Amino acid sequence: MNPLRRSQLRDVLRSQARAHRWRELIAEHGTPLLVLDPYQVAAQYSMLRTHLHGFRLHYAVKVLPHPAVITVLAACGSSFDVATTAEVDHVRSLGVPMDRCIHTHPVKKAADIDHAYAQGIRTFVVDNPVEAQKFAGRPSDIGILVRLSFPNPSAKSDLSAKFGVDPAEAELLVKHVVAAGVRFNGFSFHVGSQGTSVQPYRAALRTTFDLTKHVERTLGLRVPSIDIGGGFPVSYRDDMPPVSAIADVVDAVLGPHRSDYTLLAEPGRILAASCMTLLTSVVGTATRDGRVWHYLDDGLYGSYSNVLTEDVHPPILALDELHASRPHLRHVTLAGPTCDSVDVIASDYPMPALAVGDIVVSPMMGAYTSVTSSRFNGIAPTPIVIAGAS
Amino acid sequence: MNPLRRSQLRDVLRSQARAHRWRELIAEHGTPLLVLDPYQVAAQYSMLRTHLHGFRLHYAVKVLPHPAVITVLAACGSSFDVATTAEVDHVRSLGVPMDRCIHTHPVKKAADIDHAYAQGIRTFVVDNPVEAQKFAGRPSDIGILVRLSFPNPSAKSDLSAKFGVDPAEAELLVKHVVAAGVRFNGFSFHVGSQGTSVQPYRAALRTTFDLTKHVERTLGLRVPSIDIGGGFPVSYRDDMPPVSAIADVVDAVLGPHRSDYTLLAEPGRILAASCMTLLTSVVGTATRDGRVWHYLDDGLYGSYSNVLTEDVHPPILALDELHASRPHLRHVTLAGPTCDSVDVIASDYPMPALAVGDIVVSPMMGAYTSVTSSRFNGIAPTPIVIAGAS
Repeated sequence: MNPLRRSQLRDVLRSQARAHRWRELIAEHGTPLLVLDPYQVAAQYSMLRTHLHGFRLHYAVKVLPHPAVITVLAACGSSFDVATTAEVDHVRSLGVPMDRCIHTHPVKKAADIDHAYAQGIRTFVVDNPVEAQKFAGRPSDIGILVRLSFPNPSAKSDLSAKFGVDPAEAELLVKHVVAAGVRFNGFSFHVGSQGTSVQPYRAALRTTFDLTKHVERTLGLRVPSIDIGGGFPVSYRDDMPPVSAIADVVDAVLGPHRSDYTLLAEPGRILAASCMTLLTSVVGTATRDGRVWHYLDDGLYGSYSNVLTEDVHPPILALDELHASRPHLRHVTLAGPTCDSVDVIASDYPMPALAVGDIVVSPMMGAYTSVTSSRFNGIAPTPIVIAGAS
Repeated sequence: MNPLRRSQLRDVLRSQARAHRWRELIAEHGTPLLVLDPYQVAAQYSMLRTHLHGFRLHYAVKVLPHPAVITVLAACGSSFDVATTAEVDHVRSLGVPMDRCIHTHPVKKAADIDHAYAQGIRTFVVDNPVEAQKFAGRPSDIGILVRLSFPNPSAKSDLSAKFGVDPAEAELLVKHVVAAGVRFNGFSFHVGSQGTSVQPYRAALRTTFDLTKHVERTLGLRVPSIDIGGGFPVSYRDDMPPVSAIADVVDAVLGPHRSDYTLLAEPGRILAASCMTLLTSVVGTATRDGRVWHYLDDGLYGSYSNVLTEDVHPPILALDELHASRPHLRHVTLAGPTCDSVDVIASDYPMPALAVGDIVVSPMMGAYTSVTSSRFNGIAPTPIVIAGAS
């Protein structure tokens, strides 16, 4: 990983270790352990509001649906992006006003629509005629966002193949929505996640803006909303484009037309990633084929699931290195606790010398970690404790 | 997939659909649904005993720890391979005599050893000196298998990098085991899973056999056991080598020396894969970029997790095609129910025409499916029902 970033993280983690009493938490709960700081989510929300001023921010619940995160965001005034019946029920169970939620899954069962509607959700997303047809005969106070597809080969997760209508076919789909008897609310897109360039936002937003004008002209419909989706990149081992660069794109493309639209976004990772830190222990050490392996008590089937499902690689440091100004590092393999060969967290990765029982720290573990973990080998979910709670 | 195999599966599934009353199960439980036939596990166990005569078969619990599977196998006389404290507790809770269990995880916490021992397990596996040292001062009735590493590039899951000692270093490791004051019980290996050739078994067994002779000569120790591990291949969409071919390898390599050893194996996939069938529904259909997509209510974060974690591709058929002698197939994409782009079950895959609500069937879903699924998007685990239970 980038040595400068590692050095910066050492400073951040040193103060977190003290403030959140990691040694005490480990003594009480053992390892592996995820330490969650909900106020870090609030700080990120505030940062995002500053840059994306005027946007309604809908937190993508799937990323980390922990009650503390939902509750803090609701208190901050956030809206929410839900995609399944389970997420609808979860958010509602936490007392979130349901008119702050939009249901963004483009493909769903009719029963899912009815359930979400009954719970108070009025905004849904479709991306093809079969889905639009599912709204025929349903209440007319439903508003539909049409999800557009923009390929983004530079993104880690390019969502354009599985979801979204080709902009060239969007006008026809809007007609299907109107024919179904529900309101057309505008367009949404998602440029994919962890892109290294903001250019895809520029291209997608420009095409979407042009499309709203076209639809207004050809169909005589006002297009009230544009939803720029999520995917705002997060810095793990290396620096990524800041949100301010995306905000600049919005300003540049929409300019004075900005106020013509209700602007929505669906941030997930950028709100949650930095709020959770993993503490895990070295279980064993071996030299194999001349290389050093350390086996940790969390791995790819647990909290490091983002390595497997997303090809996202969180930073990894030793707790003991936080107090060293220039730790001596050598390249090792870090493996997880299952008996599966896929369960390798990092190969050829620089770490200080480690012995059985030493603590390994991964920051930036809030997004797409515990939610995509499994119980393989019967291993229980890594417990999540709230930082500062006694 | 192989058309002949598809045709054979149609015949098998047609009779299962009738015998296990799939339509009634779907009416009662909805989809997605996993239908588990524990007697299919018993049949596979019987088949394996016939071929690997004289072997003690230790079912690898991690593959599918469903109580019905464990209980039926225990009744058949099977032994068990456990790898974690959770698996020890699970098997014990089902009343399995614990002297039938071996603990095969080469890297574990000292507390895991103590727990397994307290529950009655006496056989453990090590593959490096740090692990051998963990047995120093522990009860002398513990027996240790030394896990050897044999690279198998032809296997889908090559376990040789993460676990196992190089045979050239095995003698030294045996000395470490003896120095720890516990019994050296022999050697184990695992040639990896889903290999298309039995040649790796031949090479590994021959080296292991030679090593037992060498250790007997140099250290004056009798080597009581050889454990050939698991990984016995299973036919999903294409035919794989039969177990009889592996049995032939054992006969050819050990010949008259066969009776000199207690022979062990750790079958998992081959016992469990065929016992479970997934029934899932078409939720939506879309044409994207000129190609047909069908969205199912189970996917890669659910029962099809083996596609993601193992690159194993189960057969997929439409329920409606079971009664067609030559169904008309066209190439489509089958996607899962999450909002994640990775969640694509099969691309460019031949299927008959499907509409929303149609049932899709995947046989061979017993191994590494529900155990590696997650709750992403809040989606509940796919329920498992026992075939024939009312």
